[in-house]
Amino acid sequence: MDDRLQCEVLVVGAGYAGLAAARELRRRGVEVLVAEARDRVGGRVWTETTPSGALVDHGGQWVGPGQDHLQALADELSVGTFPTYTTGEGVELRQGRRSTYGGLIPTSDPAAAAEGVEAIFDLDLAAQDVPLEAPWTAPGAEALDGQTLGTWLGDRLKSPGARSTIDAAVKGVFGAEPGEMSLLFALFYLHAGGGLMNLARTTGGAQERRFVGGAQQMARAMAAELGERVLLSSPVRDFAYGDDAVVATVEDMGGTGSGRGSGDGEGAGGRRTVAARRAIVAMPPAVSARIEWRPALPAARSQLAMRAPMGAVVKVHAVYDEPFWRDEGLNGQLVADEGALRITFDDSPPGAEHGVLMGFAAGNDSRALDRLPDGERRRVLLEDLARAFGPRAATPVELVEQRWCLEPYTGGGPVAVCSPGMLTGCGPALRAPVGAVHWAGTETATRWCGYIDGALSSGRRAAAEVLAALGR
Amino acid sequence: MDDRLQCEVLVVGAGYAGLAAARELRRRGVEVLVAEARDRVGGRVWTETTPSGALVDHGGQWVGPGQDHLQALADELSVGTFPTYTTGEGVELRQGRRSTYGGLIPTSDPAAAAEGVEAIFDLDLAAQDVPLEAPWTAPGAEALDGQTLGTWLGDRLKSPGARSTIDAAVKGVFGAEPGEMSLLFALFYLHAGGGLMNLARTTGGAQERRFVGGAQQMARAMAAELGERVLLSSPVRDFAYGDDAVVATVEDMGGTGSGRGSGDGEGAGGRRTVAARRAIVAMPPAVSARIEWRPALPAARSQLAMRAPMGAVVKVHAVYDEPFWRDEGLNGQLVADEGALRITFDDSPPGAEHGVLMGFAAGNDSRALDRLPDGERRRVLLEDLARAFGPRAATPVELVEQRWCLEPYTGGGPVAVCSPGMLTGCGPALRAPVGAVHWAGTETATRWCGYIDGALSSGRRAAAEVLAALGR
Repeated sequence: MDDRLQCEVLVVGAGYAGLAAARELRRRGVEVLVAEARDRVGGRVWTETTPSGALVDHGGQWVGPGQDHLQALADELSVGTFPTYTTGEGVELRQGRRSTYGGLIPTSDPAAAAEGVEAIFDLDLAAQDVPLEAPWTAPGAEALDGQTLGTWLGDRLKSPGARSTIDAAVKGVFGAEPGEMSLLFALFYLHAGGGLMNLARTTGGAQERRFVGGAQQMARAMAAELGERVLLSSPVRDFAYGDDAVVATVEDMGGTGSGRGSGDGEGAGGRRTVAARRAIVAMPPAVSARIEWRPALPAARSQLAMRAPMGAVVKVHAVYDEPFWRDEGLNGQLVADEGALRITFDDSPPGAEHGVLMGFAAGNDSRALDRLPDGERRRVLLEDLARAFGPRAATPVELVEQRWCLEPYTGGGPVAVCSPGMLTGCGPALRAPVGAVHWAGTETATRWCGYIDGALSSGRRAAAEVLAALGR
Repeated sequence: MDDRLQCEVLVVGAGYAGLAAARELRRRGVEVLVAEARDRVGGRVWTETTPSGALVDHGGQWVGPGQDHLQALADELSVGTFPTYTTGEGVELRQGRRSTYGGLIPTSDPAAAAEGVEAIFDLDLAAQDVPLEAPWTAPGAEALDGQTLGTWLGDRLKSPGARSTIDAAVKGVFGAEPGEMSLLFALFYLHAGGGLMNLARTTGGAQERRFVGGAQQMARAMAAELGERVLLSSPVRDFAYGDDAVVATVEDMGGTGSGRGSGDGEGAGGRRTVAARRAIVAMPPAVSARIEWRPALPAARSQLAMRAPMGAVVKVHAVYDEPFWRDEGLNGQLVADEGALRITFDDSPPGAEHGVLMGFAAGNDSRALDRLPDGERRRVLLEDLARAFGPRAATPVELVEQRWCLEPYTGGGPVAVCSPGMLTGCGPALRAPVGAVHWAGTETATRWCGYIDGALSSGRRAAAEVLAALGR
């Protein structure tokens, strides 16, 4: 059972970061192995055909202006894109009343809308002062990092309406409450993605286009190039490292099953060791903390991993015979100040043979939803959809939930959200190699942190570090 | 190799919480097994005789008024106590100047001292409003939990001197910066321990007395009662659970070695499974997240574990031929506004055959210290001691560091510090059983959270839950 494998570089994690790193290394003739805990590649990007035949992206799905790494990869692999559907008006639910709005910002309370827009501009302006390579060196970094985004918003916004609109946007973007995250981190993240306005919008922003055939296929294509070098169902349990070598103990979980996570466990398979000259660990910091590191990681690195909790998100797809809301002049977008689903999008396929509404339950709403039994969760979600889009929304052909907090190798989503104090206390450990171990993953990106694009650039950056270390 | 063990209740963790739980269950005739990852019992309490012959407590060491669980256990096991040495004046280092002070609060800047004391009283008063069983139900809980203690102090304190004194106390108590932790959590914690003034002081407070022979011996005595029911060097890797049964996969790391943590790893030993009707998991939340749970834990529980990072602390003992500072009228206590060691105590043995100064590097100071190579760390620590206690302090017989952040089964110390948003977002999951799994550990305590006393009461509370579930 003690199968021993050898390679030059071990990559842990076959999400976009790990695959991009492995691919880059392969192209330079480096022998790589990629150990992936799940029985699929793609990490937080996962496309599935549902029982009713709809193609849904359970995780990351969009590409927008400025995401050049992702767009170039799609072009290279001949994966097409199409615009997110945005024709018509959005639905706003505020204090129990439903209205519709055009443009970017719900306007039923015009004063609140104006105040909210101003705050977004101020946030995005402040974000410009945070250096992307080293947010901990921003002017006043300690003070910014010692408070939450919630504190900043609370000091700034006088109207509850403005606050609830911004909260909905923040929760949609981060999967977390404004009161959970460091203000310095929020500013860094906004800067890295071109600002909150950019991150929140469809046309011209981060949700502009979708991939024909789903967002996971570029990961599948990269994995196919790597062939047997990608070991699925192979979580790393134990990781011994020095300055010039690593030995990882990899569990063999069998490689079959539903794609839903952790394998079937007890006594499953044996263990392999993989020896390599260097390693790239491409996973969220919190997940990397589950590995047994020998020797123990430096304090700043292990403390960092405890201060980068994953956001909480349930991504929901409701599949209908047709996109009926379009006939009513609606674009499928919702902004709500209560309920589980506070943000939705029209996620119908191109050509719209059927209609799909997709929504997020985020932060506390996600965790509250998760506490309900299956039937009750379904009831709550359908109620939210019907309140926004009318009674037809209550009877979808299919309702698909992806509960990211229950994925053991992700722990939540869409991204790690730095707790106050993390960046100034531990930040430099984000990317600093530890002996022969290099770090990748979208959380380590300096542009589009939290996005597929950031995952790709982080993998390439780590590959470049490794190539330099190997003298290649 | 697949050794299968069976018991009624599996306890994971042989710190004070786990041992108290196991002992309680044994007394009621329940068959227990305790799986402990380390090759010693006691968890964050660990007494060692150093090479020079000094008996040092690397972790928890004190008992004070109101810590009735701990005092009763010591009485029962005939472990004596003696008062922490407090005769004489403390040393204050402020803005590069050294002075001495009597009483509780450094007074070189009297206005700052007055402002600081007022803030402590206000904090302690506010803490009274936080219900110990359910801090998330406090009036205004969301607002309190959406900001850091640092924000509260920043709004409240005008003089930098007052802020630096409070910061030193907070860092000493929590091992964390005020800007890292939720204000609601800080208030809860202070309430649970009788207030910041109580937690920071020696006589009459949480550091009042020490144990003759060290603080770990009650853990050893409880473990001795349990005998072979305590499995050392047995980290739980995989934990399958249902409503009425659990099966844990336990690594066998061999059970020898230095006591410094994780065993020697690669390919060490085999695995055992332990089947039980119920389990008590008695470890810090962040450490419990390293186990592979099947099925995945509920969202609130796994998200909680990512939002309860361990504080950072290096505990340092400097051993001298004699307690020379006593002759100079000093009590060995230091409060400093810079340096690695900002808080010290006289930790000499009773009878004082030799002298021991003990200090903490906490929060960012701890992580910064950890980044230095061995010799450089030593130089920094000795410089800090000499600045406070004169040149003789620079040449101890022995300098002993305990770097808790490098302990893989603790991850830091002295306690988990809840990030903003954790208590209101996930708090009820702290103690809520998940199927047949119950939670203990000082982080789950409602009195003396973070202290040995809280560990004991948490273990007993979990044991009572299990007894009720078993109908015993």
